[in-house]
Amino acid sequence: MDRRSFIKNVGIAGAGAAATSLAAPAVAQGNITWRMVTTWPKNFPGLGVGAQRLADRITAASGGRLTIQVYAAGELVPPLQALDAVIDGSAEMSHGAAYYWQNKSTALSFFTGVPYGMTAGELAGWMRHMGGQELWDEVYDQFGVQGFLSGNTGTQAGGWFRDELTGLDSVKGVRFRTPGLGGQVWEKLGATVTNMAAGEIFQALQSGTLDAAEFVGPYNDLALGFYQVAKNYYFPSFVEPGLATELVVDKAKYQELPDDLQALIRDVSQAEYDMVASDFAANDPRALKTLVEEHGVQVRQFPEEILKAGADASKELMMQLRESDDEMTRRVTESFIESLNVMRTRVESNDSVFVRAREQYLDL
Amino acid sequence: MDRRSFIKNVGIAGAGAAATSLAAPAVAQGNITWRMVTTWPKNFPGLGVGAQRLADRITAASGGRLTIQVYAAGELVPPLQALDAVIDGSAEMSHGAAYYWQNKSTALSFFTGVPYGMTAGELAGWMRHMGGQELWDEVYDQFGVQGFLSGNTGTQAGGWFRDELTGLDSVKGVRFRTPGLGGQVWEKLGATVTNMAAGEIFQALQSGTLDAAEFVGPYNDLALGFYQVAKNYYFPSFVEPGLATELVVDKAKYQELPDDLQALIRDVSQAEYDMVASDFAANDPRALKTLVEEHGVQVRQFPEEILKAGADASKELMMQLRESDDEMTRRVTESFIESLNVMRTRVESNDSVFVRAREQYLDL
Repeated sequence: MDRRSFIKNVGIAGAGAAATSLAAPAVAQGNITWRMVTTWPKNFPGLGVGAQRLADRITAASGGRLTIQVYAAGELVPPLQALDAVIDGSAEMSHGAAYYWQNKSTALSFFTGVPYGMTAGELAGWMRHMGGQELWDEVYDQFGVQGFLSGNTGTQAGGWFRDELTGLDSVKGVRFRTPGLGGQVWEKLGATVTNMAAGEIFQALQSGTLDAAEFVGPYNDLALGFYQVAKNYYFPSFVEPGLATELVVDKAKYQELPDDLQALIRDVSQAEYDMVASDFAANDPRALKTLVEEHGVQVRQFPEEILKAGADASKELMMQLRESDDEMTRRVTESFIESLNVMRTRVESNDSVFVRAREQYLDL
Repeated sequence: MDRRSFIKNVGIAGAGAAATSLAAPAVAQGNITWRMVTTWPKNFPGLGVGAQRLADRITAASGGRLTIQVYAAGELVPPLQALDAVIDGSAEMSHGAAYYWQNKSTALSFFTGVPYGMTAGELAGWMRHMGGQELWDEVYDQFGVQGFLSGNTGTQAGGWFRDELTGLDSVKGVRFRTPGLGGQVWEKLGATVTNMAAGEIFQALQSGTLDAAEFVGPYNDLALGFYQVAKNYYFPSFVEPGLATELVVDKAKYQELPDDLQALIRDVSQAEYDMVASDFAANDPRALKTLVEEHGVQVRQFPEEILKAGADASKELMMQLRESDDEMTRRVTESFIESLNVMRTRVESNDSVFVRAREQYLDL
């Protein structure tokens, strides 16, 4: 089938009321087919693969009663219209990241991850046991959708820099591709921040339009070839310490599902949170090994001066959000900070002491 | 119903061939009821609660087609006979920890966690993306059962010590309750290691039979009241850096289930891996706060000398296991070490740098 006409047709059929009439007969027969639009390219390591696997697992565990068809970024709608597609009924589900929709509510950033914020494990703690999910539900209720965490990249890489960073001074004026709240932090540090789509980054680095860029981490970055034009690969991304993906579902349609299928969507999403995070835990270091050993990439850590200034700027940002005009943003920020302050006591007095001791004393 | 006669009756009915004849009619009607025996007390924080929640989630997501009845430790069989109950057909499922069955195969320790080994996230990486699950399947195939990870405590607490530890010398002769491979490591450090059931620890500490004891961490230890008789609470447990629980299923019965129910058991178990780990992430620090603020507990870190000696002893142990007479133990140890060596490069060059920087620079 010609993809353009396919997309066009599905796009039209899927818009507005027509979507409901398409889905309804399937429900009556006891079998439902739902469309999942995603913000990821097809087979995108960790994330696009995770979206497809999530869909397949729901299909399998429901015995086909709920079959999910996945549309990669651009196949049905452009990536950054994925949530709107669920809101307007062109799709029943979307797979992406909540912070893409900051323009709808700043509070949404927290359900993906914020600068100097929570790691993957801490985010799960907040969302599942400290009231995070309930707050997220309140935010998304405004749009008639329901969100579930569906993956996490873990702590991302800090970025590819053409030149070595010697201190805070060397950040001044660096033309750096880094989006969202992280970009705001880097701006405070003196970088000239721009955003551009993944597919444009390589060219911009090569032509000199960019001096630096960050994307995700080794597992994703390897395929994009940044190592050919910038050899200094900095760690860690203190602005993206653990970024969660989301599954979003049309809430009215979700609630019309039988209870067992509702439970199943929730359960499989949570299973995928672990599956995606562990995929990055296993495959990021493998990709990094390839980058270093086969492509001569220099792995570097940000100078302490930058790590400290990053923390100061991130704190400033969080304090602003806690005083936001928007009540929901205030409440979410407050809950996030309070929960992080509880959980970090264990991480700092226990978990990280172990990892540091292992690094120092265990040579296997 | 009188619990004793209830247990006795179910115990007899459940033994051997009778179990099959009980289950069979339910299968024919399309609804199955399975018994899950556990190694945990009823409502035991994190773990017993997790077993019950896992059962309830399978029941809910299957719409009752597969209903799981949970029996806490001792209700149907004693806790350390849970796996045997599945093997002999008295139960279809057990919820516990693989290292309880080290006497069946030393290799099983690795699927729970070993001294100076993997954290919860790393264990998931190995099991799901680096061949760990496949090795576990080989081990359990010998017993006709199938294992799924179903939770993780995260890095546990090091233990309660009556006296402060000033260095390696102060470990010598300390009568310490700590089981399994961790106990072997502490023996190498000079402690006099004993094991005893959870319910006996308090009394032994109080009477002076024990000088020290470790159990799980603040979330579980708070309820057991150890703080009343030993005030020095040491962190981290370098011998239990991330202990996984397991769901074990009778493999033949599992394979007779329809494909969707097989998928569902696997998916819900993985969801619970995240649910239990995040429960500890949220509630361990809350319990620790209570211990410190209300019960005057002193939180201490093990002296560096002990952390280093612990790493040396743990390495010695792993090297022994890698040269084991048992082929399966050799292969599992080899895979575990190789995978840990890959994953720790990311943890040490990225994840832990972020957490350390946040600890140092972010004061919220």
